[in-house]
This record gives sequence, C-alpha cells and structure tokens, in this order.
Amino acid sequence: MFRITPIENGICAVDGIYAGAVKGGFKKDDYDVGFIRSQEPLDIAYLFTTNKFQAAPVKYVLKKGIKKTNFILANSKNANALTGDEGIEDIEEIMAYLSEKVKVDNPLMSSTGVIGVRLDKERIKKAIDKMDFNERNSNKFARAIMTTDSFEKEIAFEVEGEFGKFRIGGVAKGAGMINPQMATMLCFITTDADIPKEDMREILKEDNEITFNAISVDGDTSTNDSVFLMTTRKAHYEKEAFKEALKQVMLKLALDIVRDGEGATKTVGFVVTGAKDEKEAKIAAKALTNSLLVKTALFGEDPNWGRIASTIGASGVECDEKKLRISFENVLVYDRGNILFDSETERKANEVMKKREFKIYVDLGIGKGAFTAYGCDLSYEYVKINAEYRT
Amino acid sequence: MFRITPIENGICAVDGIYAGAVKGGFKKDDYDVGFIRSQEPLDIAYLFTTNKFQAAPVKYVLKKGIKKTNFILANSKNANALTGDEGIEDIEEIMAYLSEKVKVDNPLMSSTGVIGVRLDKERIKKAIDKMDFNERNSNKFARAIMTTDSFEKEIAFEVEGEFGKFRIGGVAKGAGMINPQMATMLCFITTDADIPKEDMREILKEDNEITFNAISVDGDTSTNDSVFLMTTRKAHYEKEAFKEALKQVMLKLALDIVRDGEGATKTVGFVVTGAKDEKEAKIAAKALTNSLLVKTALFGEDPNWGRIASTIGASGVECDEKKLRISFENVLVYDRGNILFDSETERKANEVMKKREFKIYVDLGIGKGAFTAYGCDLSYEYVKINAEYRT
Repeated sequence: MFRITPIENGICAVDGIYAGAVKGGFKKDDYDVGFIRSQEPLDIAYLFTTNKFQAAPVKYVLKKGIKKTNFILANSKNANALTGDEGIEDIEEIMAYLSEKVKVDNPLMSSTGVIGVRLDKERIKKAIDKMDFNERNSNKFARAIMTTDSFEKEIAFEVEGEFGKFRIGGVAKGAGMINPQMATMLCFITTDADIPKEDMREILKEDNEITFNAISVDGDTSTNDSVFLMTTRKAHYEKEAFKEALKQVMLKLALDIVRDGEGATKTVGFVVTGAKDEKEAKIAAKALTNSLLVKTALFGEDPNWGRIASTIGASGVECDEKKLRISFENVLVYDRGNILFDSETERKANEVMKKREFKIYVDLGIGKGAFTAYGCDLSYEYVKINAEYRT
Repeated sequence: MFRITPIENGICAVDGIYAGAVKGGFKKDDYDVGFIRSQEPLDIAYLFTTNKFQAAPVKYVLKKGIKKTNFILANSKNANALTGDEGIEDIEEIMAYLSEKVKVDNPLMSSTGVIGVRLDKERIKKAIDKMDFNERNSNKFARAIMTTDSFEKEIAFEVEGEFGKFRIGGVAKGAGMINPQMATMLCFITTDADIPKEDMREILKEDNEITFNAISVDGDTSTNDSVFLMTTRKAHYEKEAFKEALKQVMLKLALDIVRDGEGATKTVGFVVTGAKDEKEAKIAAKALTNSLLVKTALFGEDPNWGRIASTIGASGVECDEKKLRISFENVLVYDRGNILFDSETERKANEVMKKREFKIYVDLGIGKGAFTAYGCDLSYEYVKINAEYRT
C-alpha cells in the first residue's frame, strides 16, 4: 500500500537537484539552453532512440559509458545529429569549457532541434557564462528544451507507504518527430528513491514500453530520443511503489506530448484487446495511431470505422472480420460480422468524437494480447507547421 | 529488339475487348458502374491486396478459383468490404442477374469506395439494365472506377519486333488508401499477346514489385487492391518484350496514381542505392515515401535533408552516416559525413524542389541493393479531402 500525491516543482521537487536556463539567442526571446545538476554525482539510467543515426549527444554518453553524473546541459533549436565526429568534438569542447565554470563530474549533453547543422559552440559557451548554477527552477528548464511544443511538460509526485517515502519529478518535450522506439524526444526524471542499481534501468525500460513507446504524433522516430532517470538516493524505496510512480510520471508526460502534438486537436487512446499476443496488440494499436486516414477521420470527427478495420487488416496481425469488434467509447459500431452503423449509431459515435480526449476500442477476439497506444489527429495546422519549419 | 509505340483506346486497344459504363446513381452525375467483357472467356491472372480483411469481390474470385472469364463488372463508391458472407451473397445475386442479360462465363466483380457498407444491389441491377454491352469505350470505364481521382488513368501500347506484334492496354484508379502491398486499388490490363499460362502471373508479379508496389500516397493498404491481366491470345508474344511493355503500362498507371494522389502537388522518386540488398533498399525508399516529415517538407519545398537522413536511420536498414550520400537531383547536400548544405546549395536544392516532378537520391554506400519508390507531398488539401470524406 502506498499513496501518490502530486506536488510542485517538477524535477526540482527532489532535494539537491538544481535546474535552470538562460536565453542563449537560439530562440528569438526565450530560454533555449538549460541545465540540471547536483553537488555530488548521481547514478543515472537512460534509454536512447533506436534510430541508426544517433545524434552526437547520444553517442557521446554511450562512448564515455557514463553511469554517474552531476551535470546535464541541454539545448533546443539544434539536434547536433548527422554531424559526425565534429559533433562529438563540439560536445567535448563545450564540456571542457563548462568544467572551468562549475564543478562537474562526467557532465553530459542533450540536444533537440534541426538535424544536420553543426552546433554554434561559441553561443553555447556564452549561454554557460550567463547561467546561475544555484537556480532551482524546473519550469525554466522545461521551457528551454521546447521546440514546437506549446506548453511546458512537468510533473512531480510524493510517494508514501510503510516503506517510508520518496519523491519523483520529470520534465519532457515533444511536439514533432514523435514515434519513440525507445524513449521520446527528451525526458529528464529525478528522484530521491533509494533504488538498487540493478532496478533502475529495468524499471525505466518496463514503464517506458507502456508510456513513451505507446505514443505517436507523426510516426517519425527521431535521432535524439532520450529518457534520463537520476537518483540522489536520499529517501526510501519500495519497488512496486516506485514502478507505479515512475509510470505515472512517464504517462503524464507522454500524454502531454500527444496533447501538444503538432497541430493536434484531439488525443485518442486506441485500446486493442483480444490480440494473439501483446506484441500483435501493440502492432495494431500503433498502426492505428499512425494511419493518415484514421488521423484525418479523427480531425473530421468522422466515425469512419471502415478505416479503422482496414488499418488493422493492413497491419499484418492475426484477425478475422467475424471476431472483430469496434467501439467509439461505449458506442459499438461493428460487432463480429454485424455492421451496427445506422444513422443513430453514427450520431452517437460522432458525439464521442467531438470530445477533446476519448478512446476507441478494438477487440480482435483472437487471444489475450492487449495494448493501449495514444495518438492524435492530423490537422491543417500539422501540415502548416511542418511545411514551414525551415532549417 | 522490339519497339513500343503508344496507341489510343486503353483496354479497348485490344481487339475483341468491349468496355463501357453507365450512370448508376452512386455518384451525383457521373459513370459509376462499368464492365469489361469479351465474347469468349479469356485467361486471367490477378494480384490482390495483402490486407487481412480482403473485400468480398476479392474473396469471391478466390473462392470460385476463377482462371478464365469473359466479364468483369466494376463499381465505385462502395468497396463491399467488411460486409461478411452477405457481401459475397450480394455478388452472387448480382452475377445471377447479369447472366440473364448477357452471355457470361465465370463473371467477376471489382469494387472500390467506402468500407463497411452493404452494396445497394437493386441499384446495381438497374445499372446493368442500362448497359450497352457492345460499347468499346475504355475511357468511360476508367471514369466509372474513379473515386477521389481527378483524372482517368489509361494507357495502351503496340509492341513490334521480329517475333511479330501484340498490343497491351490498361486502366487504373487510385487517389487514396494507396500503399499497395500486392497491387494497387484497381487496375485492369488487357492484351492479345499469346502469353504462356505459366508466364502470366510470374511476369505480372515481377513487374508489379517495381511499379504498383513501389508507390505510396498515404501509407494505407486498402482492402480491395487488385490488378487483373487478361489476354485474348490473338497476337504474338516474346517474353522480354512483353515484360517491358507490361512494366511500362503499370509504371505509367502507378505514376498517374501518385500524380493524382489526394491533395498531391508533387511527384517524387526516391532512388535508394548502395543498400545491403534490394529488400533493405525497398524498406528505406518506402519509408521515405511514407514519412510525414519528409512529405510536408516536399510540400514546403524545404530541402530538409536531415529529415531524409533521420527517416533512413529510423527505418531499421543497415546504414552509417560516414557512408551516406543525399542529393536533390544533381545537388549533393550530404556526402559521407560532410555537410555540404550552405546557402548556395540550399538555394539550388530549393530550385529542384519547385518542380512538379523530381528525384531524391540516397546512396547508403553499404552494398548493391537498389530500389526506386514514388511518393507525393502532404498538403492541406489531403487533410481536407480525408477529413471531409464521410461514409
């Protein structure tokens, strides 16, 4: 038994975590270079993108084999991806510069923005010069990592049980190139839970599968996707409580990313049940989040269940039209071979779709595999944002 | 050695092929029910969708094991898909009715349109009543199968060589739900070439891989995709000549489908070379045609090569940023680790992208696998068409 209570201050809800940001001039007049730090180095676990062209900051962490750190520098507007050895050398130079300004221990970097452009090192150095390393402002950091995001994504909880208590907080950014195969664009989670080292990565991975890996904005997996989990180990720990709290942090941030998906007007959960196994349920659910015809039907508030069925059929999973059931929330439109879609059902299903957030249930009637994926609609605005987003 | 000359009259360029259409009232005031027929039954080869929910007309052909036919009835506005046993019974009833009006031998049906709605049999019967079975009007038939298509897709060739000569003609429809896994939405090809039975399906399949299976409008594979090839066997045959002519027919129709893709303003060939093998080249090329970020960059005429690289990296194929090369036509923007993208290169690449049709070359520098896929941009119009297309 444990109790999870939302609290303020995101990643800085955890004692000993400092965070802040400055206006480095990459954005017009907003925060764009930020940091997270602690006095002592903290154990860190991470998950990175499965994109074969991993960005320089990802390669840097893997190359150095960083397991403990007391400093993360983050920037937006430039992903430092497809920048070759120079991209990594740029990070090394920046990290060396940083070490002259503040006490760092295995510092690392995390970047998001345009792919294929060298970092402006001098500008980053000037941003470092302006930093107040004693700031404890999670929100400023959350702003600094935003690209096409329209709001900051932050959350923190205090978890209490017989084992004692701990805190956990997270920030993330999303908006575009969102179809995480490992983790979403960028997410930073801090905690004071006394997690055994061997649990850190395992729990992060498990919770990631059903949160960040369950969302899609546009089906494109970025070069920079990263989730970091850091712990000060100053508080208590209980595995189930921590796993649940971490899941809630990650699900909240993942859904915020979908809610803030480029041009999105609706957040839709695709609940697939009755698949042959969980893997097939996930394939079907993710296919629904990525189908342009489904996404445009969501935008048009059109309960076009035929497109949902066709997408399931095209996804390659085991299915049978005599076992399939489709409902929009509680409005059943297709039931194992019977088309229940008359004008009354259409009106009710259309009512469901007018909501900002709703669920579509697809039961394959084959086995016990279940998975819920979260997606959004495809609007004119998405096209506008991405046709105009120039390098 | 052989010569391929374009000729008029599409599928009716072949002697003995009749085709026509009537206004059945499914569309406001246009042809919507059509036929292709011959006096004697013809050998027919076909390829159908890999969507697990095959439409009733597809299931009907497979169930009957039709190998020879003298009649194809086609309709638009209703796909007769996800309609269960009733969908097949509806076809049987329509075919029985047809046999009272005209001499048919293993007649079959082909449908396109909305998924999950029963066919209006009575309306189809009334359309049959109005048909002039002695018409030889390929264009009318091509119009009858159009849905969101904006122009008819027809082609015919006469092929002449030392072996003698033959003719070949085709019609197709496309526009949406286009990511054929076996064949595109609907395509009908007639010929008088004296093809050995064992060659028919083999050649159709091979040519299909590099034509219809190489295109994508929206990444959605429909329930009805079908390609039919029929021959009267009245003329001559030579394998290489036929294979080439068939490829040209199919490529022309496939590219017409992309040109007429819903809301498309650009047709782009993604030429992938240097992949580990052909399979990986195809995966990478198709991934490029389906990436929303690439498609919106095409619409915005933005030479955002980072999105192209990222899509390749996310596609799962073997790749290495130090071996990768990317060019827009002859404008090289990224060369094996070197970013050549300065303002002059950007201007030139942007010039290329202003064209209605162009190619993007991606060399992976790994092996000898090559594949060219054809796609289009994603425009506001696509969203409009698909958000408003109601059941």
